[in-house]
Amino acid sequence: MSVVDVGVSREGLAALLNQVRKRTESLAGPLSAEDQTVQSMPDCSPTKWHRAHTTWFFETFVLGTYVDDYRPVDERFNYLFNSYYVAAGPRYSRHERGNLTRPGCDEIGRYRSQIDQRLETLLERCSESDFAEIANLVILGLNHEEQHQELLLADAKHMLSFGLGDTAYHKQPKPAAGVASPMSWVDYDGGLVEVGYSGDSFHFDNEFPRHQTFLQPYQLADRLVTVGEWLDFVEDGGYRRPEMWLSDGWVQRERRGWEMPLYWSKNDAGDYQVHSMYGTTPLEESEPVAHISFYEADAFASWAGKRLPTEAEWEHAAAAEFRAVRGNFMESGVFHPTSASQSAEKAKQLDSDGLSQQFGDCWEWTASPYRPYPGYRIPDGAIGEYNGKFMINTMVLKGGCAFTPEKHIRSTYRNFYHPHTRWHLSGLRLAN
Amino acid sequence: MSVVDVGVSREGLAALLNQVRKRTESLAGPLSAEDQTVQSMPDCSPTKWHRAHTTWFFETFVLGTYVDDYRPVDERFNYLFNSYYVAAGPRYSRHERGNLTRPGCDEIGRYRSQIDQRLETLLERCSESDFAEIANLVILGLNHEEQHQELLLADAKHMLSFGLGDTAYHKQPKPAAGVASPMSWVDYDGGLVEVGYSGDSFHFDNEFPRHQTFLQPYQLADRLVTVGEWLDFVEDGGYRRPEMWLSDGWVQRERRGWEMPLYWSKNDAGDYQVHSMYGTTPLEESEPVAHISFYEADAFASWAGKRLPTEAEWEHAAAAEFRAVRGNFMESGVFHPTSASQSAEKAKQLDSDGLSQQFGDCWEWTASPYRPYPGYRIPDGAIGEYNGKFMINTMVLKGGCAFTPEKHIRSTYRNFYHPHTRWHLSGLRLAN
Amino acid sequence: MSVVDVGVSREGLAALLNQVRKRTESLAGPLSAEDQTVQSMPDCSPTKWHRAHTTWFFETFVLGTYVDDYRPVDERFNYLFNSYYVAAGPRYSRHERGNLTRPGCDEIGRYRSQIDQRLETLLERCSESDFAEIANLVILGLNHEEQHQELLLADAKHMLSFGLGDTAYHKQPKPAAGVASPMSWVDYDGGLVEVGYSGDSFHFDNEFPRHQTFLQPYQLADRLVTVGEWLDFVEDGGYRRPEMWLSDGWVQRERRGWEMPLYWSKNDAGDYQVHSMYGTTPLEESEPVAHISFYEADAFASWAGKRLPTEAEWEHAAAAEFRAVRGNFMESGVFHPTSASQSAEKAKQLDSDGLSQQFGDCWEWTASPYRPYPGYRIPDGAIGEYNGKFMINTMVLKGGCAFTPEKHIRSTYRNFYHPHTRWHLSGLRLAN
Amino acid sequence: MSVVDVGVSREGLAALLNQVRKRTESLAGPLSAEDQTVQSMPDCSPTKWHRAHTTWFFETFVLGTYVDDYRPVDERFNYLFNSYYVAAGPRYSRHERGNLTRPGCDEIGRYRSQIDQRLETLLERCSESDFAEIANLVILGLNHEEQHQELLLADAKHMLSFGLGDTAYHKQPKPAAGVASPMSWVDYDGGLVEVGYSGDSFHFDNEFPRHQTFLQPYQLADRLVTVGEWLDFVEDGGYRRPEMWLSDGWVQRERRGWEMPLYWSKNDAGDYQVHSMYGTTPLEESEPVAHISFYEADAFASWAGKRLPTEAEWEHAAAAEFRAVRGNFMESGVFHPTSASQSAEKAKQLDSDGLSQQFGDCWEWTASPYRPYPGYRIPDGAIGEYNGKFMINTMVLKGGCAFTPEKHIRSTYRNFYHPHTRWHLSGLRLAN
Repeated sequence: MSVVDVGVSREGLAALLNQVRKRTESLAGPLSAEDQTVQSMPDCSPTKWHRAHTTWFFETFVLGTYVDDYRPVDERFNYLFNSYYVAAGPRYSRHERGNLTRPGCDEIGRYRSQIDQRLETLLERCSESDFAEIANLVILGLNHEEQHQELLLADAKHMLSFGLGDTAYHKQPKPAAGVASPMSWVDYDGGLVEVGYSGDSFHFDNEFPRHQTFLQPYQLADRLVTVGEWLDFVEDGGYRRPEMWLSDGWVQRERRGWEMPLYWSKNDAGDYQVHSMYGTTPLEESEPVAHISFYEADAFASWAGKRLPTEAEWEHAAAAEFRAVRGNFMESGVFHPTSASQSAEKAKQLDSDGLSQQFGDCWEWTASPYRPYPGYRIPDGAIGEYNGKFMINTMVLKGGCAFTPEKHIRSTYRNFYHPHTRWHLSGLRLAN
Repeated sequence: MSVVDVGVSREGLAALLNQVRKRTESLAGPLSAEDQTVQSMPDCSPTKWHRAHTTWFFETFVLGTYVDDYRPVDERFNYLFNSYYVAAGPRYSRHERGNLTRPGCDEIGRYRSQIDQRLETLLERCSESDFAEIANLVILGLNHEEQHQELLLADAKHMLSFGLGDTAYHKQPKPAAGVASPMSWVDYDGGLVEVGYSGDSFHFDNEFPRHQTFLQPYQLADRLVTVGEWLDFVEDGGYRRPEMWLSDGWVQRERRGWEMPLYWSKNDAGDYQVHSMYGTTPLEESEPVAHISFYEADAFASWAGKRLPTEAEWEHAAAAEFRAVRGNFMESGVFHPTSASQSAEKAKQLDSDGLSQQFGDCWEWTASPYRPYPGYRIPDGAIGEYNGKFMINTMVLKGGCAFTPEKHIRSTYRNFYHPHTRWHLSGLRLAN
Repeated sequence: MSVVDVGVSREGLAALLNQVRKRTESLAGPLSAEDQTVQSMPDCSPTKWHRAHTTWFFETFVLGTYVDDYRPVDERFNYLFNSYYVAAGPRYSRHERGNLTRPGCDEIGRYRSQIDQRLETLLERCSESDFAEIANLVILGLNHEEQHQELLLADAKHMLSFGLGDTAYHKQPKPAAGVASPMSWVDYDGGLVEVGYSGDSFHFDNEFPRHQTFLQPYQLADRLVTVGEWLDFVEDGGYRRPEMWLSDGWVQRERRGWEMPLYWSKNDAGDYQVHSMYGTTPLEESEPVAHISFYEADAFASWAGKRLPTEAEWEHAAAAEFRAVRGNFMESGVFHPTSASQSAEKAKQLDSDGLSQQFGDCWEWTASPYRPYPGYRIPDGAIGEYNGKFMINTMVLKGGCAFTPEKHIRSTYRNFYHPHTRWHLSGLRLAN
Repeated sequence: MSVVDVGVSREGLAALLNQVRKRTESLAGPLSAEDQTVQSMPDCSPTKWHRAHTTWFFETFVLGTYVDDYRPVDERFNYLFNSYYVAAGPRYSRHERGNLTRPGCDEIGRYRSQIDQRLETLLERCSESDFAEIANLVILGLNHEEQHQELLLADAKHMLSFGLGDTAYHKQPKPAAGVASPMSWVDYDGGLVEVGYSGDSFHFDNEFPRHQTFLQPYQLADRLVTVGEWLDFVEDGGYRRPEMWLSDGWVQRERRGWEMPLYWSKNDAGDYQVHSMYGTTPLEESEPVAHISFYEADAFASWAGKRLPTEAEWEHAAAAEFRAVRGNFMESGVFHPTSASQSAEKAKQLDSDGLSQQFGDCWEWTASPYRPYPGYRIPDGAIGEYNGKFMINTMVLKGGCAFTPEKHIRSTYRNFYHPHTRWHLSGLRLAN
């Protein structure tokens, strides 16, 4: 978040802004006013809140800073749409976001338009010296909005799961699944390697500083664990055998009554089915398993006699020169993890080491707690609350998922969740 | 709920049905799709749920019984819109009603229209012998819907209270308040009196059987306790002195942090304000205090050196021959308790005993636990779950409020709530 | 608690004091220091706390008031051993009584002796004018201690139920059970009757004032419901059929997983067994069922097509001139409800109306919420906290139990518990 | 826990066993039967449970395995005194240990003696081939018992803190405090270093395998953070400024109302005081601060502009050849962290690098989550539940404390607690 030369023109930035902001509205498009209002659990936020909060971010940190005598669109919004930026003032209680019916969807749409216009004007008129700073903040705001695009989809999927019958986001039916070949292993030598961000493009503070770390030789599975493999785990008593679980994980399993991944259920005939953006459909064994907690991923690895990769192991593999950040991302419009064969096709690469699905499809749980890199310092100000304060009790996930914008992701990108959470599009890859 | 001769023609019943059903839609009118979706706490339900549930009631208990081979409008609705009728089958979890975004408001509007048409057809075409039974059930359904009209308003008021600034149900400003004269006492001789319903019009099972009970001589205050009197209680440490509170009440006060009635707050300048259907406005001292729990009412009475009336004392006074069930009810369109002078005007009577506000304005907490009358038996079937199973841990309230339809109320009418609840429009009258 | 002429001499009072105080120590006798320390749930208190608290009551309200410049035995004890008398100052948190290991049992024994000696001295030396007041307070203190004797036994039974195998209070084995004849009904005319205390002996404020009330004709079962009858209820799905339960009761049943009365269990062979003061033994079908909540009692009555008696119905029957307060009380040393034949023998009366077990054995749940009698006023001062503040959400129980001192009980005596509680020795008698 | 040649004779092992087992009894000595019974919170266990559980460990894993047709002392004990070894069968609910009054302290004393005798006999009579395995298990059992000795003291300190006045474990008064010089820094080069256990003496599975890791250059403070320095943090608003706290930490701080370390309080005069094994005394500024959570330690470091050391940084420093594992441990009998000057004296070394208090006094929170070392595999069987299943959501602490037996500790020893816990004797050292 330091001021770097983002190497973008005023026009280029305005176009980028336009593109990202419009995509948010387009993602919200299939959701009714009723759909956009509900907060189905405290971790989630209503669609219309995501739309307003991302707008507030630009208004507060860009317009509020760089427009003289700035008059906000609505003075209440700073209270209503601040998420957790303590330094930006008091804010509406997070778990009551779903009680906030006004402003409604239409008014939030107008709020978005007004801020977009003001940003456009600012980008046209600001001084050269301001532009560098503003461009940095706008790019931060766009990356922030991309994160909320993913959350908007994950939260909508959760909200729709409470319905009966009429639970699809997409209007079209679910496409046919592809194929997953038997799992095989890819070898890595390890040694003294470097991880963390080193370039001069946008990156989050938590990816920094790049540093050396030492790896033992290791192996990674060539693809994500599939639904079929998970079914074997379930049928083999995976959710009934505490000896394969971490102690805290077993406590959660019992408290929450987990018997299978989130969104799986059995119908009256005893057949497994799954809720997705396409409504409720039968399980597809070749697809990657998704919506599992870290505890479940760890128990599965234990059951399989394997383990989860560490973040450094994963990142070292992902940094291979021949590997592009391509895969089944938001841009595909599928919003669902696809079978390895289809993912490889989307990635337009059969990676020379044989590893598939490393980017897109499902966030991959790693064995690594989310902690600061050596020499990391929390940035000053409200933006310093972005990452550092969450570096405890959370585990790192890598690679992005079918809800993530493709260009949002890097091999050094660090996502993180508490180990009991499951509503994000998370899966796993085994290591050895 | 036994089959009585309701003395109504087919046309008369159809007109009544039309009137009540239209009023529900009219009450929902000022609420947006977003407003209608939210469940702001487990005791409340979304507006659109009230609209659908009252419709389900007619569909299940009338159409489902009296139409041959009845095909429901949507098979899912029996699950989604059953409230607590165990005998009518499994139902959607009460506290998750606010997660149900689909069907949306428009679809529920169509559901209402379809059921209204089907009911109209049934009323036209049913046999004479069926009509008597159907008429009884339809009248039960209308009384049921009237109760939900009141709940719709109380729940909407609660939902709107989470907003900021834009929290009014009414578009017009709050009318000016009236006057409350100093409180005086009305004397009653007591003795062996009768309470409970005895006529042959509609009444609920819980009002029956009419029976004798013995009363000591007693006095009732001539009007409801006012906001001004409650302010004295607050300022005198009413919420800080456990010796005036019931033990369970004090526990609730501490756990919930009560310092004043629900919807009261202090603004930054230290002035009291109150949320109502007119948004946030200053307190009006002459208005009846409202949105208090039984515990607070009891503590206030204790502070005043008085007590709450028993249900029998209240009902005996209300049964005076000269007293009509008139007052500040839903039909006034005010949706707010008014000062005694205004209420008397609405009642179009200065009762000859000087008692005002006995009907309308605020439900009056009594000192009486809600228990069955001697000889009461729970009716068979789903409709038997209407009242009897709630006859524990709840206290009786009498007289209706500014959210209640006027013709819904009788002197024998028994409302009931748990003693800690406050979101209904409850107030108090002192006894001695 | 008003100062009445208790008609007792100094020597008589000293002897009474000695007798009651010694009995407490004797009840604690079979319990080890470990047994006496534990608080097995928040409603219970450790044995040694009961021993200290009853002593504190005399020290605070008698010695502290009537001894000039009174110096307490230990200044900390006023904080540690106050129960809930807000007016007597701050007190140790109730639910942490079980964390208080010091003072130990021996020190509490010394505390008791010291206070006994001081009371003895005061009774010898106080002025005549003080004596009347002191005698009233001492008698209150003795009644208070008698209540704690019962609690001590009930709490010990609960505490011992957590053990394995070695869970008996008594050293001797359980005596053989007697016989319960088939239930029959006793008729009462009802009419305008009087209830409440009217004499000039000791009584609690809640029994006052005596007043008129009107009763419909009614019937009472001639004995308590038996274990055998309860087994029929269990086997007939009594704990699986919500339609027989009050709504709040069903919620409790589900939350607490009730499938049978407290202390019942099934062993590995599928046979019912029960924990009592004699350890774990098979069920005896002729004994009264015990340790049931009001909710279970009400559901049983509903299943049987009957109801529970109201307090007034029960008291009117108990006030029959020929009926003495005799039965299976604490003095029998059995500490367990006995079969109706044995209870009748203990009562040394076959009551001329055929009603047995009305006093002793089990407290009988009534259908009556615990509320103040007409004209009841809470007494001033700390002693005013004894009863009045609990008059909400609780139900009245009548008649005493096998843990209660016999002379502690009157027909007007009002015991009360929240409807979900079960650790007291409660049973039920049906009414019709 | 693999079978290693522990190089100990039968007599030597018997003597060691005798010594450790006697010390447990000696630590329990000052605690009354009442003191030994209480479980003051779910994380703690009663003293008598520690005494019984450590005995059960030997009975189950040594006697039960190596004595033919072994008959347990009491068959119930396998249920009552199993802690969390799922593979060893069902066990008494952890949070109800404090409800278990029987067996009492004396009976547990006899249980201990019987098992000691049986172990002695086994050690004399077992075959040579069995001896190697038995010796390994006995040494594991002794290390297990040493851990429980520390817990016994920590839990007793917590239990005694609920008392009033009479809260000391020690009979003698608290010794005078020493001196802490101003903090200074010791430099380390880092680089590719090795951590983890490599020798052939006893060690836990979690210290294995020894492996390479890469360290940046770093600095460690020469002593623990003192009470005086912590007071500066408190007075500077350390507990009021969320920007210095991890997000989860701030949630805990608010929920638990933390304003200062556990056991600190302010007396009526506004002076700080602290509960310790010597009862309640004023704070000593030169002593190390203790009983802080990881969250508080991290916030303090943030406030100071520093950080906590990683486990590898700490271990690399501790592995310096000149540093012996000596310090203020359990053997000193002080049971309280002492000032740096006194600790150095106890360690009988002024380490050539100037680092003091690295062993003993307080466990030092590190910045490292407790996770498996590369190549770690959970051992088979019940003993495999010792460590691996806790490797989530916990942070590593190093160096032992004033409750820990000195010879129990190694530089590679990994202790671990959840970041919100405070009842253990934890402190911190800053890193840079």
